[in-house]
Amino acid sequence: MNHVTIAIILGLLAVVYGFVTSRQVLGAPAGTEKMQEIAAAIQEGAQAYLKRQYTTIAVVGVIVAVIVGLFLGGISATGFVVGAVLSGVAGFIGMNISVRSNVRTAAAAQKGLQEGLTLAFRAGAITGMLVAGLALLAISVFYWYLTSVMGKTVGGEDRTVVDALVALAFGASLISIFARLGGGIFTKAADVGADLVGKVEAGIPEDDPRNPAVIADNVGDNVGDCAGMAADLFETYVVTVGATMVLTALLLKGAGDMLGSLMVLPLLIGGACILTSIVGTYFVRLGGGTNIMGAMYKGFLVTAVLSIPAIWFMMQLALGDMNAVIGGMVMNVDPGAPLAEEGMASQVGGFTGWALFWCAMLGLVITGLIIWITEYYTGTNYRPVKSIAKASETGHGTNVIQGLAISLESTALPTLVIVAGIVIAYQLAGLIGIAYAATAMLALAGMVVALDAYGPVTDNAGGIAEMAGLDDAVREKTDALDAVGNTTKAVTKGYAIGSAGLAALVLFAAYTTDLAEFFPNLDVDFSLENPYVIVGLLLGALLPYLFGAMGMTAVGRAAGDVVKDVRDQFAADPGIMAGTSRPNYARTVDLVTKAAIKEMIAPSLLPVLAPVVVYFVITLVAGPQNGFAALGALLLGVIVGGLFVALSMTSGGGAWDNAKKYIEDGNHGGKGSEAHKAAVTGDTVGDPYKDTAGPAVNPMIKITNIVALLLLAALAA
Amino acid sequence: MNHVTIAIILGLLAVVYGFVTSRQVLGAPAGTEKMQEIAAAIQEGAQAYLKRQYTTIAVVGVIVAVIVGLFLGGISATGFVVGAVLSGVAGFIGMNISVRSNVRTAAAAQKGLQEGLTLAFRAGAITGMLVAGLALLAISVFYWYLTSVMGKTVGGEDRTVVDALVALAFGASLISIFARLGGGIFTKAADVGADLVGKVEAGIPEDDPRNPAVIADNVGDNVGDCAGMAADLFETYVVTVGATMVLTALLLKGAGDMLGSLMVLPLLIGGACILTSIVGTYFVRLGGGTNIMGAMYKGFLVTAVLSIPAIWFMMQLALGDMNAVIGGMVMNVDPGAPLAEEGMASQVGGFTGWALFWCAMLGLVITGLIIWITEYYTGTNYRPVKSIAKASETGHGTNVIQGLAISLESTALPTLVIVAGIVIAYQLAGLIGIAYAATAMLALAGMVVALDAYGPVTDNAGGIAEMAGLDDAVREKTDALDAVGNTTKAVTKGYAIGSAGLAALVLFAAYTTDLAEFFPNLDVDFSLENPYVIVGLLLGALLPYLFGAMGMTAVGRAAGDVVKDVRDQFAADPGIMAGTSRPNYARTVDLVTKAAIKEMIAPSLLPVLAPVVVYFVITLVAGPQNGFAALGALLLGVIVGGLFVALSMTSGGGAWDNAKKYIEDGNHGGKGSEAHKAAVTGDTVGDPYKDTAGPAVNPMIKITNIVALLLLAALAA
Repeated sequence: MNHVTIAIILGLLAVVYGFVTSRQVLGAPAGTEKMQEIAAAIQEGAQAYLKRQYTTIAVVGVIVAVIVGLFLGGISATGFVVGAVLSGVAGFIGMNISVRSNVRTAAAAQKGLQEGLTLAFRAGAITGMLVAGLALLAISVFYWYLTSVMGKTVGGEDRTVVDALVALAFGASLISIFARLGGGIFTKAADVGADLVGKVEAGIPEDDPRNPAVIADNVGDNVGDCAGMAADLFETYVVTVGATMVLTALLLKGAGDMLGSLMVLPLLIGGACILTSIVGTYFVRLGGGTNIMGAMYKGFLVTAVLSIPAIWFMMQLALGDMNAVIGGMVMNVDPGAPLAEEGMASQVGGFTGWALFWCAMLGLVITGLIIWITEYYTGTNYRPVKSIAKASETGHGTNVIQGLAISLESTALPTLVIVAGIVIAYQLAGLIGIAYAATAMLALAGMVVALDAYGPVTDNAGGIAEMAGLDDAVREKTDALDAVGNTTKAVTKGYAIGSAGLAALVLFAAYTTDLAEFFPNLDVDFSLENPYVIVGLLLGALLPYLFGAMGMTAVGRAAGDVVKDVRDQFAADPGIMAGTSRPNYARTVDLVTKAAIKEMIAPSLLPVLAPVVVYFVITLVAGPQNGFAALGALLLGVIVGGLFVALSMTSGGGAWDNAKKYIEDGNHGGKGSEAHKAAVTGDTVGDPYKDTAGPAVNPMIKITNIVALLLLAALAA
Repeated sequence: MNHVTIAIILGLLAVVYGFVTSRQVLGAPAGTEKMQEIAAAIQEGAQAYLKRQYTTIAVVGVIVAVIVGLFLGGISATGFVVGAVLSGVAGFIGMNISVRSNVRTAAAAQKGLQEGLTLAFRAGAITGMLVAGLALLAISVFYWYLTSVMGKTVGGEDRTVVDALVALAFGASLISIFARLGGGIFTKAADVGADLVGKVEAGIPEDDPRNPAVIADNVGDNVGDCAGMAADLFETYVVTVGATMVLTALLLKGAGDMLGSLMVLPLLIGGACILTSIVGTYFVRLGGGTNIMGAMYKGFLVTAVLSIPAIWFMMQLALGDMNAVIGGMVMNVDPGAPLAEEGMASQVGGFTGWALFWCAMLGLVITGLIIWITEYYTGTNYRPVKSIAKASETGHGTNVIQGLAISLESTALPTLVIVAGIVIAYQLAGLIGIAYAATAMLALAGMVVALDAYGPVTDNAGGIAEMAGLDDAVREKTDALDAVGNTTKAVTKGYAIGSAGLAALVLFAAYTTDLAEFFPNLDVDFSLENPYVIVGLLLGALLPYLFGAMGMTAVGRAAGDVVKDVRDQFAADPGIMAGTSRPNYARTVDLVTKAAIKEMIAPSLLPVLAPVVVYFVITLVAGPQNGFAALGALLLGVIVGGLFVALSMTSGGGAWDNAKKYIEDGNHGGKGSEAHKAAVTGDTVGDPYKDTAGPAVNPMIKITNIVALLLLAALAA
């Protein structure tokens, strides 16, 4: 059997898992009529948002597809469309499951904690497996079609496959940045707006059905943490695995027959881990206790441990002899070659299948470490969150100061892990080693997304329990489930940005290799001694700052609109506050939808336009070799700057959120105390940090890199 | 007359100005007995702090001096000591003037706004001229002694002068980081602590004499914004001008007789601008109106405009023919040379005196633009501050969110200015051009520091007016003077970090040139394609984050100590709150002093140890060529990361502060409104941002760079 067929079958398996599990989940009882009514409002709102968002994206997508088609041909345009559509599909289905599981989770939580956990986690697992499965299918079917049906080859002069894979990644990335940013602005505008006008002004509790923004808030959980996150991880998967294949094609050109196997190997690793992820989902069980996080970890650990032999098996299958040297035999080291090729040569000095295996293991270890570090910084049991909770005793100001200090500090350990990963992988197998570490990280995406997508389901379940006036005991259970969701959501973001750190190196290598191939006579100096490289680094590092500023301001503006709308509704109909008339939920949803869509456009264009502008301006001033140097440096600047912005925002935001939860658990005076008020401020500040600006940095980094690759191809055409 | 003598005379002129003006200032009436009593308490506290800080620094300094002496010889050790001692002297004298002018400013403000402004500005100008003058004297006397007395030469094999200049810069930097950080922690711990326990807990106004922390708060203004800032700018001056000379010596080796003139030219530019700065101080006048900021700008503008012919004159004097080509004649371009030298060659492709002149003008323009941008982001008349004030209406959370958005956004324009500066200067005269732009920026330091050191004087004057129970009209005048101080303080920080962006490039060039000279056979690959370069960039960018986290946490911890002490004092003697007994101010001052000194040690060691650790660890793993590559990248990583951290923190903090002031001026409900409470939170958050962590990033960047240069010299010895 052709190896790519195995990858396709395993990808289909994930889809089948999603189908079967969704039948199970949707077959569960959906609670009382009141609960179903509320859930229906959330579903309606979610549908309305998705419809408008996808319409907008479709318009942009068609324009971009035409541009890609004009510059790079029909196959690349097709790749772009496939990436874009499947990314949308993963988010769309995941979200539809999510808004139907929320009410069923609330119903299940009436029976017990385990029942609630099982239902919510299954719902998350559907999204997880769909993301991993569809991403794997997108690449492997497309690759299979290009090579087996169209007969295209890699390694020769024909760049069809490489360009098509890059275009596929571009499609996925473009959807992803819109979904992440649009969803992030929606969810936080609704959340912050609802809190401001409900909790603060009207003095009604969170999730009170009298608040017209309450449905928008619940819709937001889904469009942000489910649809947005799914698109993001789909993109990260496609870009990382795709970039590994592109780099293989570019660097190991001369590997002959072996090249075909090497191209498919990342797909096989992805397939193997889908299998282990599916197995892992069945191990998420409380086992008598109430340690929900522990149950999650059990599932993750089973997946990770099983992945070791599974990856080994796939490598054995693809490479045959694990001891055979792969890189060394293929390189033609030409001492007179320009710098880019020289670097290339030294990086492919020869490595064995075993070296690649250890790099993949390294990817698993990095994933585990990043999860552990994120839990340390955002979990309620450790110093960081406790220190923020303690600082809340002395007021709003000290809560925010300590939160900012923790958010700055939280970048250190992940950076050290990523740096160690780069050094070890490079020592083992050069740039390809780094690519394999990143691929193995992303291979676990199915499981990681499952942990994350579980969050909005339980969050909504709590909201529905509150609004439907269920027993306090139910709300307690959904709250317990939800608290874990805060950490798992932070984990996914740390994981995504951490893998971006590695993937960006791979993309940069693809850029320099492409550059050397397209413009062999251009002597581009990527040395730090070239001031245009510094210029590129500075401009690249600026992008996440500017992007973050735009995202945060957008949330503030949209939240202001929500406040105004709710005030108007309260004023127009006093029956709403009295509880006698039903607020117009749909109007608020519609308003947030419009605002989010409008606000997402400008920041999304930043990473698309910046590479083009920087290249042309510097080329104008200092010639194309410096234009390319500055552009290359921009790609690394955006990751060097973006890594810290994203890590600090996502961890800091998670820590603030859980510091509030920690106080609500009865510490430092508990709910209603002055410390709690300060912690609510911190939580509000953390919201756009962790759910809007921070996570959107990851797709932003990728887009910048991919646009640069496409620009190269377009300039060469 | 020898050119270096001209520089020495102009440096002495600044000292004379300081002496004469301080006689004037100290001769002004010092107000009522009550006022003098309060001022004496502040003076005492400031003395106690300085004594303890300098004792601690002296211990560290002696150890480091011995280490420098052992590795690099007695002359370098002397350079280190001169830099350290003069940096301390500038801060010491400046602060002593400051704590004596505060009360005199309060007294003068009783007469009128112009009188208060004149006195406070004169006091600031003393510090300003001393910083610029002593810095210029430090370098020029030392250089004169080495070349004229000891007969050392530059351009040959003898590295004495170069090493000694680097050691001089190291001495200045080491004091500076301690002073900035210790002062920053002191001032904000006292400020935040006093506010928390006074305004929030006890409900007494700011600067209420019943608050035992009130004197510590006023002392803090001086040790942070005067002594700390003076040491910082002294360091920036010495490092920038020193690095320009070092780079000249390394890159223009073969310039023969011309080399001597080129070495002294940066000193002459510095001298010329001292003269124009002194003239400028006399133009700071209200001229009938009440536009204080306008009066400041008038002075700055006069200085800047006069500097144009002054710099031209000095260049003419040093170079003779401004049209003669300088760089081109000296380079021996060897096509087979390793990368570092190759880069070097292309950068010295020949430029004229006119090119250098235009680079210096560029430096003046950059300074002006950065001042203008900083005012836009921190002034009460523009969108950023107004948007934060408006966001305060909806609560603490939205105030902080908008403040963070502005702080992220505020990095964009300065970065674009710096990038444009790099590109233009490099086009004009290569790396030396960038060095001249930076030198011209720093040449204006006297005037810029004057604007900044004015801040703590007026801040204290307001406090004294309040505590001494002066008329409300006086307090209004000191408040008006103080509001401008918030902006001018932010301006200096933006200016210091902006110049650091340019100076870091010069330092990095010195590093690579040194490396090529010390280890000619080591082929170090600084290309972005080398993963160890990426590793260095990531680790470098991490440093300001970790450093910022440590600084912010330190403030929180020390502020907590203040709160406890004040609570104890209130509990032990109820007469304090009743106003019948005097609180023990000295005890609180002593406590903050000890806390600040203790807390400044760990973060200060970070930039000293990081380069050494990174070099040795990477060398161990991947050999010395990659160790040097990672170290070099670390130097740039710390500037790429640090520039954004510092800019966002200092501008954001200033904007928060003035948003509060804007509300207090009667907008959005004015003092006591809910919006005001939210704005106070933002101000508290901004405090450690703008006064502790943010400004200390500048010396941190320099130390990292200088330690790397010293490490190179030590490894080669």
